[in-house]
Amino acid sequence: MFSTSDAERRTGRAAWVQAMLDFEAALARAQARAGVIPAAAADEIAAHCRAEEFDLDSVARRAVASATPVIALVGDLTELLDPAARPYVHVGATSQDVLDTAAMLVVRRTLRGVLGDLRGAADRCARLAEQHRGTLMIGRSLLQQALPTTFGRRCAGWLTALTEATAALDRVVSRRLAVQFGGPAGTLGSLGDQGVAVLGHLAAELGLAEPVLPWHTDRTRIGELAGALGTVSGALGKIALDVELHAQTEVGELAEGSSGGSSAMPHKQNPAGSVLISAATHRVPGLVSTLLAAMPQAHERAAGSWQAEWEPLAELLRLVAASAAGTERLLSGLRVNTGRMASNVDITAGLVMAESASSALRGELGRTEAQRVVRELCAQVVERGGTLRAALLGDDRVRAALSEAQIIEATEPGDHLGAAGAFIDRALALHESGGNPQ
Amino acid sequence: MFSTSDAERRTGRAAWVQAMLDFEAALARAQARAGVIPAAAADEIAAHCRAEEFDLDSVARRAVASATPVIALVGDLTELLDPAARPYVHVGATSQDVLDTAAMLVVRRTLRGVLGDLRGAADRCARLAEQHRGTLMIGRSLLQQALPTTFGRRCAGWLTALTEATAALDRVVSRRLAVQFGGPAGTLGSLGDQGVAVLGHLAAELGLAEPVLPWHTDRTRIGELAGALGTVSGALGKIALDVELHAQTEVGELAEGSSGGSSAMPHKQNPAGSVLISAATHRVPGLVSTLLAAMPQAHERAAGSWQAEWEPLAELLRLVAASAAGTERLLSGLRVNTGRMASNVDITAGLVMAESASSALRGELGRTEAQRVVRELCAQVVERGGTLRAALLGDDRVRAALSEAQIIEATEPGDHLGAAGAFIDRALALHESGGNPQ
Amino acid sequence: MFSTSDAERRTGRAAWVQAMLDFEAALARAQARAGVIPAAAADEIAAHCRAEEFDLDSVARRAVASATPVIALVGDLTELLDPAARPYVHVGATSQDVLDTAAMLVVRRTLRGVLGDLRGAADRCARLAEQHRGTLMIGRSLLQQALPTTFGRRCAGWLTALTEATAALDRVVSRRLAVQFGGPAGTLGSLGDQGVAVLGHLAAELGLAEPVLPWHTDRTRIGELAGALGTVSGALGKIALDVELHAQTEVGELAEGSSGGSSAMPHKQNPAGSVLISAATHRVPGLVSTLLAAMPQAHERAAGSWQAEWEPLAELLRLVAASAAGTERLLSGLRVNTGRMASNVDITAGLVMAESASSALRGELGRTEAQRVVRELCAQVVERGGTLRAALLGDDRVRAALSEAQIIEATEPGDHLGAAGAFIDRALALHESGGNPQ
Amino acid sequence: MFSTSDAERRTGRAAWVQAMLDFEAALARAQARAGVIPAAAADEIAAHCRAEEFDLDSVARRAVASATPVIALVGDLTELLDPAARPYVHVGATSQDVLDTAAMLVVRRTLRGVLGDLRGAADRCARLAEQHRGTLMIGRSLLQQALPTTFGRRCAGWLTALTEATAALDRVVSRRLAVQFGGPAGTLGSLGDQGVAVLGHLAAELGLAEPVLPWHTDRTRIGELAGALGTVSGALGKIALDVELHAQTEVGELAEGSSGGSSAMPHKQNPAGSVLISAATHRVPGLVSTLLAAMPQAHERAAGSWQAEWEPLAELLRLVAASAAGTERLLSGLRVNTGRMASNVDITAGLVMAESASSALRGELGRTEAQRVVRELCAQVVERGGTLRAALLGDDRVRAALSEAQIIEATEPGDHLGAAGAFIDRALALHESGGNPQ
Repeated sequence: MFSTSDAERRTGRAAWVQAMLDFEAALARAQARAGVIPAAAADEIAAHCRAEEFDLDSVARRAVASATPVIALVGDLTELLDPAARPYVHVGATSQDVLDTAAMLVVRRTLRGVLGDLRGAADRCARLAEQHRGTLMIGRSLLQQALPTTFGRRCAGWLTALTEATAALDRVVSRRLAVQFGGPAGTLGSLGDQGVAVLGHLAAELGLAEPVLPWHTDRTRIGELAGALGTVSGALGKIALDVELHAQTEVGELAEGSSGGSSAMPHKQNPAGSVLISAATHRVPGLVSTLLAAMPQAHERAAGSWQAEWEPLAELLRLVAASAAGTERLLSGLRVNTGRMASNVDITAGLVMAESASSALRGELGRTEAQRVVRELCAQVVERGGTLRAALLGDDRVRAALSEAQIIEATEPGDHLGAAGAFIDRALALHESGGNPQ
Repeated sequence: MFSTSDAERRTGRAAWVQAMLDFEAALARAQARAGVIPAAAADEIAAHCRAEEFDLDSVARRAVASATPVIALVGDLTELLDPAARPYVHVGATSQDVLDTAAMLVVRRTLRGVLGDLRGAADRCARLAEQHRGTLMIGRSLLQQALPTTFGRRCAGWLTALTEATAALDRVVSRRLAVQFGGPAGTLGSLGDQGVAVLGHLAAELGLAEPVLPWHTDRTRIGELAGALGTVSGALGKIALDVELHAQTEVGELAEGSSGGSSAMPHKQNPAGSVLISAATHRVPGLVSTLLAAMPQAHERAAGSWQAEWEPLAELLRLVAASAAGTERLLSGLRVNTGRMASNVDITAGLVMAESASSALRGELGRTEAQRVVRELCAQVVERGGTLRAALLGDDRVRAALSEAQIIEATEPGDHLGAAGAFIDRALALHESGGNPQ
Repeated sequence: MFSTSDAERRTGRAAWVQAMLDFEAALARAQARAGVIPAAAADEIAAHCRAEEFDLDSVARRAVASATPVIALVGDLTELLDPAARPYVHVGATSQDVLDTAAMLVVRRTLRGVLGDLRGAADRCARLAEQHRGTLMIGRSLLQQALPTTFGRRCAGWLTALTEATAALDRVVSRRLAVQFGGPAGTLGSLGDQGVAVLGHLAAELGLAEPVLPWHTDRTRIGELAGALGTVSGALGKIALDVELHAQTEVGELAEGSSGGSSAMPHKQNPAGSVLISAATHRVPGLVSTLLAAMPQAHERAAGSWQAEWEPLAELLRLVAASAAGTERLLSGLRVNTGRMASNVDITAGLVMAESASSALRGELGRTEAQRVVRELCAQVVERGGTLRAALLGDDRVRAALSEAQIIEATEPGDHLGAAGAFIDRALALHESGGNPQ
Repeated sequence: MFSTSDAERRTGRAAWVQAMLDFEAALARAQARAGVIPAAAADEIAAHCRAEEFDLDSVARRAVASATPVIALVGDLTELLDPAARPYVHVGATSQDVLDTAAMLVVRRTLRGVLGDLRGAADRCARLAEQHRGTLMIGRSLLQQALPTTFGRRCAGWLTALTEATAALDRVVSRRLAVQFGGPAGTLGSLGDQGVAVLGHLAAELGLAEPVLPWHTDRTRIGELAGALGTVSGALGKIALDVELHAQTEVGELAEGSSGGSSAMPHKQNPAGSVLISAATHRVPGLVSTLLAAMPQAHERAAGSWQAEWEPLAELLRLVAASAAGTERLLSGLRVNTGRMASNVDITAGLVMAESASSALRGELGRTEAQRVVRELCAQVVERGGTLRAALLGDDRVRAALSEAQIIEATEPGDHLGAAGAFIDRALALHESGGNPQ
């Protein structure tokens, strides 16, 4: 209720009305091309299909009575025309043809920007992954410190998720946004044998896919779109959640570039950008479920479930658009505190290297005994202080099995990063190829 | 709680445990191939990875303490082995590696059957569409009779939705089900520089895709899968809803082959198959939303949101599997009452042809006058009875404009089907090509 | 996107801003009463707390940076004041205090109207139930004709559901809408030992409940509200669904007073009111799930889940408000076609009385034989035509057991309505008592 | 899939079947009391209504054909009876009467345990609140340190949420669980004028409420129940989330009594109990939305939406039961590290006291200047180290305004807890009164 984004404009009332008018203009042109209506009428119609010429509040008021704004809008459009052109408006179309096609146009216009923002965010991830290829950071599971990793590896994970989710959304945008045109019963009955030709021209006019059939009660396209948007949103939500967790006062590893300050609490580095992304991503699954639940639509055209789609779809677009743009901004300004990352690796006094130590001992002591010894030394560290490395160096059983250099190597976090670097390279290669993820 | 399907078996506890053991066996073999563990150990491990050898109730009981069944299961597996092989079980893996890979195996095994059932259902739709290419039926919108169409056109709509939704699901099944293997921090830290090689062998062993990275907290695959299943479910729910509506006593156009009888009410033709499909499809959107909401997962491995995925995913598979099989059955046995379809076209006494009549008059009378005359005659039919055709034939203004043959043609439902036949052909062509829908 | 209701105004941006300003005004007055700020400052503050004095677009723009509109709004308010009063604005409060209290005010203002509409709708149901106490109608299960009932009994069912759901909502509105005031950490730390007193005065000023504690991260109130709204919406959706089904061309038992006409299809009686209610009720469960999913809020004040509440809550109010008003209108204008109700009872040629017939025969023939005979006669009716009554009258086994009068009685729908009338009386009594349902 | 709780047993298949048989037994007894069937038949029926006598797998298999298990179960029950009693089983009832009443019994049996666990958890919160009345802890908002509070205040928040949510659930359990009995059309048509009497006796037999009407398609009770369970789940999820956050390695303020250990990572204190509760609470909103979306049910008995309720309701009970029991356990064993709580208050070097400092200065310097000075000193602390208190003590402008004692007082976290203690007392008083929260 308090945002004013670009996506807001692309999905707002005026944008919908313009898209509806774009349908009417394109329909007239397509029908002129097929010889169904006179070319002059098509020109006259197209010339008036501009949202600025309409009183949107009045259209909205009259929409309630017929459960659709189309009747009022087409009525107003007809009024604007030269009388000779009036019979040629909206020929053979039904309200749903207009609204579904308008929805596809709004979706495409909004999602082009979203895909750009997602690619921008992925670029930022790629840069962070490269830059922090060697930045040691503790890996965490169940919110507990686990084993060392790098911040670059984390960014590679964000990158891959964005690449995958973007590819899936891109596929829907480029292949599944189709024109709707079927008339009241999905047969284009009033166009005789010209229906298919007009459908083809209409799709070409609008640059949307030509569907095999009118899809009035086949909502597969909406389901696929909802699923793809939900997946993108989840991938964005993961980044925001990570930033919030790393930005905690006690962790201090990440901060937002322009943290939302609090005049009363100057020490706070509120992750305001992440919080708004998280808030948006919280709202998406409910909207996806509404769209999926609305898929079973009765007969040729539905009672209620179709009408339930409009606003959730617009809302879904708005939220994903805001999250994508917000994530691009968030990552652009992200401040990485590599010092805190390094020092946080050490706060368990080396206990995070216990597994590594017991691996090193396994050869000499056997698995069970190695684990027993290490567990004992860990307990000692917890109780008496010191570090695991010192405890290992001071233990006779350990010293009999391993040299000092071996003990130091076994307890050096940076030496136990396994495939972290290789994984980063793979993620970057996928990103650079622009390719399709497995 | 009262079903016993094939899908139930494929998604039940034993199936999950077997899939987890399949991971352990394949991991051992992959590590033997990479030289990480001895080949003999791998053989010994693989030989015991059979669910029948395990006490599943005991595993379940112990699962609660550690929030995962893996620790108990790997413990029991280790017990079963020759002591020499014991150190080589589960090397470098974390619980989530096992559970995520097992999930992918369960998904693939279940969805192969589901894809078969969906294709079977599509075949039935195609046959119905061909067979009823000329079966006149009234098209309905907002549950009101609207304009004539054919039952074949309706079936073509079902077919296209199934084809589209199946293609989207197939894409996820064939490309996005990947092995999971990253170790506790997603770095395969304990495998040194062998991690990527083992990952590759493991994917090959299991016939799953090799991911660019471990995807412990990148749940894009789950999101895409959920979206695709939700879309399939919606397409199936539409068919069931249509059957229920057509099977209404007052409509009587369709009946299920084996209607659920009621001993107390012998006249009832309960659409029991459709009802169970509808019930299943009602439950799917909530589960999809749960899976999408669980996507933002913290750090390297999540606290709570990952654990929230298991049962909803299994449930989702079960429901979609039951719906797909049920729809195949429903369509196989569907009884089409073409007589009722024909007679229902007539119950408005021809009023459904009003638009056609006013189109026919438009040339002579102009649009506005044509509509006025027809509306007047419709009102007359409603008040005094008779048919619209008779009213038109008896009206001087109409007779001055149109011949008797023209009036009859204008009010003959079967002559106003527009592109219905062409649309059926397009749907069948898409189905036969097995091709990718726009 | 195309509606302009009263509820829209009550839940729109200006309404929220006014409610936020109402909080600031009431807080100043409460603090003056407690002696925390000067009375003159409170008067000055309260005098400027009028939404008209603010540039809402500007507030919205600045809201994004800090993830809340409060900072900008309080800043603008402070600017408007006499300098002497400026230090006394928003003392001790945090942004969430303002927004949560504003939400409660918006909820209360909106729901008072909704409760009125719900009671109006219940009154209409009561009138219909009385009026159609004896209007025979076929009862339907699984969309199949089942056994006779009355339209009055159906309306009694609507009535009871509305009464129950309204009572639950009323309880939340009257008892659970509380003021929010806790300061940044929920301790009212900057008010020393005056915090509790100010909280009490503030609640009194606004006429909201005084909570035991600030409830910044205790979202129980929101959960209860969401549950109650979801339940009301479900009860309204059932009425709309029933009207849509009864209004089907083939059923024709109900029509909306002002059916949404279609100029192209003059015979259609589009249940446009019901369709809009259905569409709204389809959208509610997803919003409720979003609010419930947002309940787990971290620490003293949440990151993301609280911010996710605002718009879904506003949307939920809007949808339920529109449905309640729509249902009141729908029921006021409902046209009941008792003739079609009566004739639809007969379309199965009496088969709906089969159970009654077999009950009547049970005494003489035993249960199994009675059922067998009736089933045989039903099959005969289906195959050869005629009515069940005629078949019974013409069957020797039946005539040996029952007199003609008994057969007629057994097959007279109106004689087998059981407790339908008694149930209507009970529903009306509950309604009249305004009482609490069991 | 891997849990084996008490609630599992209360909501499993056998529990449902027993509840269905309890309905049949009680119905027979109620009808005997009303003189509708012989007392001996009622005794015979009741004697066989024990789940152990039935082959549940066989019932489940046959349930699919008729979309309900009732027909098979009643058939098997009839077989078990003395032939004389057979005609008196299930008289006048429909399948839904059995299943809905069984659901209410399962709900009541499960929720009694749940209410006990919730009260147990509330008791633990109360004890913690008392015990930690003075335990200083930093309050956090947006996951950032904000201002001081006490751990007792936090526990009071948990307590109040539990008290409120439990009261709302208790209300539904004690008042809204009603018997279902209406026969196929909700009229009890086959019982003549005995229907209402039997309904009353049946309710008394089972100890459930007597509804005003049969509620076959009035699902208000289910909606209210779902809302109350969803709210309880949200309140439990908040506690689990807080424990997970406080248990983070970098925070270390709370630990679970029996942390899920990781043999490979001995330092980890996995909050396994909280994680399972979080996982359960993540799944609840989707189930609530499914139940709410299923509320609009057609005519006298629904097609699909009713059948969609059974498993989500059982699942919802299971999840809430597991979370309630888990929370009681979690709180019983919770380990509070008051030392870490205290030291975490200091990690910002006193910056969390900035607001307090600027308040103290306001009298002498004016609000704007006070804030400017404090902001400047905070920046100095961040850049050069030291504490805010030291910076204040060393600043001439500050020293001119405040004494050393005043500066120390202003920067002493424990002196700025406002109403924290009073709020704890209020929460405890509400808890002890067992009373109804505002």
